[in-house]
Amino acid sequence: MAEFAVDPAFEAGSIAVGDLPLCHVRLQTDARWPWLILIPRLPGLREVEDLSAADRARLIEETVLAGQAVRALGAATGFAVEKLNIGALGNVTPQLHVHVVGRRAGDPAWPGPVWGVGVAEAYGDAALEAAMAAVRGMLAL
Amino acid sequence: MAEFAVDPAFEAGSIAVGDLPLCHVRLQTDARWPWLILIPRLPGLREVEDLSAADRARLIEETVLAGQAVRALGAATGFAVEKLNIGALGNVTPQLHVHVVGRRAGDPAWPGPVWGVGVAEAYGDAALEAAMAAVRGMLAL
Repeated sequence: MAEFAVDPAFEAGSIAVGDLPLCHVRLQTDARWPWLILIPRLPGLREVEDLSAADRARLIEETVLAGQAVRALGAATGFAVEKLNIGALGNVTPQLHVHVVGRRAGDPAWPGPVWGVGVAEAYGDAALEAAMAAVRGMLAL
Repeated sequence: MAEFAVDPAFEAGSIAVGDLPLCHVRLQTDARWPWLILIPRLPGLREVEDLSAADRARLIEETVLAGQAVRALGAATGFAVEKLNIGALGNVTPQLHVHVVGRRAGDPAWPGPVWGVGVAEAYGDAALEAAMAAVRGMLAL
């Protein structure tokens, strides 16, 4: 049986934060938005329906946790989150993953979606450290 | 206590299909994609976290059902769904709702997200009837 592995395509735009009971958590390295990615740690997943009902319930609970972490991340980096955007698309990278993105009026894509908009802005070293600490703190990772 | 009501903003772009145990179901009247919207039938919701954990589990199960209905809708209207896109954004219409959209390589927004892209194309009468019948059949509505 195949083992779970993160698709290497995620490495270009995000960094590992740690693992929740179901999902591997990654920080999208784009300072324009506080943004986490959840990847359920089971092999061969493409759609939400590929998970068992019990794991689907875990996924939506971890999505809620990730939303709290996105708010903490935003608070740590000066982005006051007004709305969460949750998306499972997978058109480019098919391995099942869920985006949890903090939004606010006037952000670089508001009110449109963030996916595919412009070019990622790198975090500075201090901001990245603050972002990671905020996420790890909220997720107890 | 306030009662649930569908935000009138949904009426411009979608039509009511029926009600699942948790969610009101609407067909997005845009023939470019097979596309359903789920609106949890409780007042005052804005984020997924505003639902109880039990209702969150119901929401993700109804999202999976809606995905099956989107595939049936696509089959009935000549759009072979290759990937589902699931999104809870709410930047424009804040009432909590989940989009379930069928995608395929080469569709008018592929591989980007569908939200905010171009102008909706109306269904013809026969296609709309076929679409509604397919969705109602799959959801037993």
